[in-house]
Amino acid sequence: MRFVSVKNMTAWVRETGPEKIIAGLVDAMEVDFRRWERFEREPRVASHSPIGVIELMPTSDGELYAFKYVNGHPANPSRGFQTVTAFGVLADVMTGYPLFLSEMTLLTALRTAAASGLAARWLARADSRVHAMIGAGSQAEFQALAIRSQLGVTDLRLYDTDDAAAETTARNLRPLGFDVTVARSAATASADADIITTCTADKANAVVLRAGEVRPGTHINAIGGDCPGKTELDLALVHDNRLFVEHTPQTRIEGELQQLPTDWPVTELWSVITGQSAGRMGTEEITVFDSVGFAIEGFTALRYTRDATANTRYSESIDLIAEPEDPKDLFGMVGAPVPVG
Amino acid sequence: MRFVSVKNMTAWVRETGPEKIIAGLVDAMEVDFRRWERFEREPRVASHSPIGVIELMPTSDGELYAFKYVNGHPANPSRGFQTVTAFGVLADVMTGYPLFLSEMTLLTALRTAAASGLAARWLARADSRVHAMIGAGSQAEFQALAIRSQLGVTDLRLYDTDDAAAETTARNLRPLGFDVTVARSAATASADADIITTCTADKANAVVLRAGEVRPGTHINAIGGDCPGKTELDLALVHDNRLFVEHTPQTRIEGELQQLPTDWPVTELWSVITGQSAGRMGTEEITVFDSVGFAIEGFTALRYTRDATANTRYSESIDLIAEPEDPKDLFGMVGAPVPVG
Repeated sequence: MRFVSVKNMTAWVRETGPEKIIAGLVDAMEVDFRRWERFEREPRVASHSPIGVIELMPTSDGELYAFKYVNGHPANPSRGFQTVTAFGVLADVMTGYPLFLSEMTLLTALRTAAASGLAARWLARADSRVHAMIGAGSQAEFQALAIRSQLGVTDLRLYDTDDAAAETTARNLRPLGFDVTVARSAATASADADIITTCTADKANAVVLRAGEVRPGTHINAIGGDCPGKTELDLALVHDNRLFVEHTPQTRIEGELQQLPTDWPVTELWSVITGQSAGRMGTEEITVFDSVGFAIEGFTALRYTRDATANTRYSESIDLIAEPEDPKDLFGMVGAPVPVG
Repeated sequence: MRFVSVKNMTAWVRETGPEKIIAGLVDAMEVDFRRWERFEREPRVASHSPIGVIELMPTSDGELYAFKYVNGHPANPSRGFQTVTAFGVLADVMTGYPLFLSEMTLLTALRTAAASGLAARWLARADSRVHAMIGAGSQAEFQALAIRSQLGVTDLRLYDTDDAAAETTARNLRPLGFDVTVARSAATASADADIITTCTADKANAVVLRAGEVRPGTHINAIGGDCPGKTELDLALVHDNRLFVEHTPQTRIEGELQQLPTDWPVTELWSVITGQSAGRMGTEEITVFDSVGFAIEGFTALRYTRDATANTRYSESIDLIAEPEDPKDLFGMVGAPVPVG
């Protein structure tokens, strides 16, 4: 069984370059989205407590099985912990044996960005030039790189209620070749935007972007509204525009779609990619990707990372699965030696 | 985050002694069974394929969260693999952070035996002297040790359709102080038994023990009937005697209870331990523990192992959870260094 630790994941991403890995993940995710209907699409299994949630997200394509462990604890940063941590496992469906264990805190940040990149590849205008980001938290840099990897957009307009967070993000991104403007409001940031990413952290039904602040032809990646009771967009924005989602039943519970009736029509992104549904209809349409994350994206991330790190120094062996010499004699591994004499 | 590898689990069990660890697990399991109603009791999450199943078994007591990954592939031994492999994780509900990762293939064998030991502690006659085992697979030695740890029974009667398997088990157990007789039939093995353990591997509705082969006053641990379509006991045995179970909804699907109507009354073992339900009613009653395994037992096993191996050489550190210096600046871990002017 192979293992990618935090140290090795960090080294792999730094040394390869996060944008290159995100671009690779977008391509790999498109492959998996094209065969979407072959995957098990079970709901995630959540364990809720008053201060957070721990979730298991399993799926399988019939050959590989994957699950991700992920928590969400909004108050964690105030105690010096991260809001979200994650790890995941790939296993062989034929034997049931686990094959691969990986840290996924960083990898989830990359795959979340890759999902946005994939949506932008299929829904944003090809001539997009300005990317506005509302919210400069842990996801911001990854989202900026994902959009640039797909559309070449380097003109970033950044707004966060926390000036220091916006400055940290700007400081991280400028050396990477982005032209970053820190804006004083969401409206200012969005004024000239072709793509808007909302990715804020408050666990509430907030409005971080209003319909009047969005130009015709804009593509919106709505990332932050991702659990029950947490939304980011003005009702008019989700009501008046076509919504693109990952897995509809999950988005109804967790996404911006919470704001609309339970039979509201939406379009699953995979069906745009396979040509079964229409994507963007004209240069004036506002398209909204209501992203909440789905198990198949974690599957893609694990599969891609396993393949990319195989036979490299980023992957090590881990002693997690017992292999007795005789598979029927497990006790032989621990039986006390026969006393001599 | 701490980690117990296969090598360290094996060393811990060998050097401590499997019987001592099983006895410790029985005590720890009784503690958790006494507070049964405080646990989340979700069904396991199964991913079925034509040749096996991969399951995630989560639970939480509100302070600690645990899950076990476990597969079941009956054809694996014929290909040189084990039928069942497992690993598990404990996490802190307050932060959502994983705390402990452990191999659980061996540990599951120990906890399955501990569950039998706990049932025997509460349901078998205190004067039990003979233990019959039908099935000499991977569980056999562990079950023998569990019963001895609770009731001091060393007189073992062993039957398996595979003579070689019975001889392997006998050879493993005799040096440990057991008086083992290999029997030619289940009836012969059970003739003088006070406790009977059925633990066979065939994935079918089989009958490995008949009502006429069981003496009054016997306690039966029915271990092998543990998934849909797999049972071991004669209908009369489960119909005519009181059934004790772990978690009723799961046992109805997976246990001997499959043979009876869906409203058949059963008694959950925890409620016997807390005194809310009657246990054995007299020296002539036949009691049946219809064991299928439940997530709370995995929780106990992880909790006990974590505590018992803390600050020992059996526990090592594992680099699975990212800890950025600034929890809001995940990108800082992988951002390219600023080029020097």
